[in-house]
Amino acid sequence: MKDFRPVPVERAWAWIDAATNRLRPEEVALDDAAGRVLWAELRTTDPIPTADCAAVDGFALNSAATFGAGAYNPLTLVADRIEAGEPLPPGTDAVLAAELAECDDAGRLSVIDPLAVGANVQRRGAIAPEGAVLAAVGACLDPATLGLLGIAGVARVAVAARPAIRLVIAGRARSGPLLDSNGPMLRALIARDGGVVRMAGFGEALFPGADLVVIAGGTGPGPSDHSAAALAKAGSLEIYGVAMAPGDTAGFGRTAAGTPVILLPGEPAACLWAYELFAGRAVRRLAGCTPELPYRRQTVITARKIVSAIGLTEIVPVRRLEDGRIEPVASFVEAGLGATIAADGFVIVAAASEGRPAGTAIDAYFYDHGGGFGWPR
Amino acid sequence: MKDFRPVPVERAWAWIDAATNRLRPEEVALDDAAGRVLWAELRTTDPIPTADCAAVDGFALNSAATFGAGAYNPLTLVADRIEAGEPLPPGTDAVLAAELAECDDAGRLSVIDPLAVGANVQRRGAIAPEGAVLAAVGACLDPATLGLLGIAGVARVAVAARPAIRLVIAGRARSGPLLDSNGPMLRALIARDGGVVRMAGFGEALFPGADLVVIAGGTGPGPSDHSAAALAKAGSLEIYGVAMAPGDTAGFGRTAAGTPVILLPGEPAACLWAYELFAGRAVRRLAGCTPELPYRRQTVITARKIVSAIGLTEIVPVRRLEDGRIEPVASFVEAGLGATIAADGFVIVAAASEGRPAGTAIDAYFYDHGGGFGWPR
Repeated sequence: MKDFRPVPVERAWAWIDAATNRLRPEEVALDDAAGRVLWAELRTTDPIPTADCAAVDGFALNSAATFGAGAYNPLTLVADRIEAGEPLPPGTDAVLAAELAECDDAGRLSVIDPLAVGANVQRRGAIAPEGAVLAAVGACLDPATLGLLGIAGVARVAVAARPAIRLVIAGRARSGPLLDSNGPMLRALIARDGGVVRMAGFGEALFPGADLVVIAGGTGPGPSDHSAAALAKAGSLEIYGVAMAPGDTAGFGRTAAGTPVILLPGEPAACLWAYELFAGRAVRRLAGCTPELPYRRQTVITARKIVSAIGLTEIVPVRRLEDGRIEPVASFVEAGLGATIAADGFVIVAAASEGRPAGTAIDAYFYDHGGGFGWPR
Repeated sequence: MKDFRPVPVERAWAWIDAATNRLRPEEVALDDAAGRVLWAELRTTDPIPTADCAAVDGFALNSAATFGAGAYNPLTLVADRIEAGEPLPPGTDAVLAAELAECDDAGRLSVIDPLAVGANVQRRGAIAPEGAVLAAVGACLDPATLGLLGIAGVARVAVAARPAIRLVIAGRARSGPLLDSNGPMLRALIARDGGVVRMAGFGEALFPGADLVVIAGGTGPGPSDHSAAALAKAGSLEIYGVAMAPGDTAGFGRTAAGTPVILLPGEPAACLWAYELFAGRAVRRLAGCTPELPYRRQTVITARKIVSAIGLTEIVPVRRLEDGRIEPVASFVEAGLGATIAADGFVIVAAASEGRPAGTAIDAYFYDHGGGFGWPR
């Protein structure tokens, strides 16, 4: 535990933010863009549609010509067929839907209802006006946005390159006989945040060729804990220890070539939270996403007191009651990863706070985001 | 539009639920299980941990033996080193953290603070008691659950096989010159719901070899709309038309071999909603997930009247105001997919309803789920 000098989480965040930036743009086809992170804002150059269009298949008419039409006064009009999405011909301002039209072989329509001006017409710019933002920088491309980009005529799109994250499982197996529990968890987390996982052994941890190195385990005070010392020796150890629970033995440094390295504790709950607060932030920044935690945040009221040690940023698992208030459940320190079973989410109690009395407002993060595969981030 | 007889959405849902079931289990390694859907409930057989364990690296002691220890009364005790996660040796009930211990080469500790019983001990069953549910049937495996399963000694897990979804883009291109907007959107939606997309041409649409066929476009009344007629001819068309907006020209049937086929309208907003309400439900059921819409649902108050035609189930895009109430924005009929730009979510107004006056409660679905790559579903 030489060099172990816990810093506030804000110091660790500042280190990450200085060490990581999105990498570079790469162009992908719309078909391959789902879940990717947009490199630059996309705006319409022209309104969509560029002209008044038929909203349905039918016949384009001048509505004024249908004035007075009725079941007892059918009007016979000649009109061109039009398909949904086609621009209205000059002199027309409404569309008679095909299924309501009676049309003979000579193209003569029998109209028995007057058409309102604009009926079944999609106006110029109705989908998006000129200069509208279709997707913002850093947006994770969702299905509806991909559809919109297709409509806007975008065939290829510039997205942020995915960072290569070298993942090293350095600690002792904390689970059943020889089973690694942190590996599957971290692979899934890195993929969620837009990184490409490359597993490596401890001996290759600090080799060149990655955008970020994540080493899990071996950060503690035990005699078999070598991660911090190895990083200090072969590269630099810039921060060792964060005043948080769980996750206090996280560390930060660089390889000899300058690649950022993040050390995560091996205890699974500490590993999870040091990932979420630190490594995940680094991966998301490298991937061009917002660095914020990818959980839905909502201000809620505490139903019971939340206790937290002053001087430590604490992650407290919480359960949501029927009435929408929250209460703490068995902590990550007591129950390890088991704390997530009973929890609907968590709160982050700042180091300066001793917690919250019952009945006060606090920001909570919830797991129940509903689905999707990564948007919005 | 022969055979076009719109049915209530509930009828279409009943058809889907009768036509689709999860496929079969397949076993995957924990490393490959992220985002997969659990086939059977996973419970602990033994408590985790199975015995009282060290929560930190240090020295296992009998707390009673430390009674009276103090800075001016250091006690010298002999104790074994213990690593976090190891079971406590018989006769010990507390752990002195390594960083607080002074230990000479002969293994003699100098103890200057009394240890409370249970200090730095993780109790038998603290992570999960015997018989605890680690993950439920149909759960989408998230990172923390993967970690827990690793801790529980689960190396391989039975997940639902991914359904093969044949996707056919049959309609005219509705977007810019020759660009298809529905293809990228539907591929992303199917992947989100756990399906494996296989693109096919219209001529191969009804061949054997898929778990579900989705044909987008060509469902309308136009002269170039052949999807419904082709399905009726080569297989069966069992439902054609749903009383909803947008998306009323959705259709349902089977190939000659009995594979379910869902027809989606080609207009992009109608395509999106017919997918979300019908094809998505089918994919999610085949994939073993809950059939519910993968958006977060919340009861909210309307700030303005929501108007809806009686007899039609309507999808109404809504915006959330600062105070948490919602109001409708330009409809999908007016603005097509562009309606999603201004919306934070949507409400589904049932066919029997004419809408809602301002100030009433309604269930809304929101896009702001925060992230994740597909859990929980």
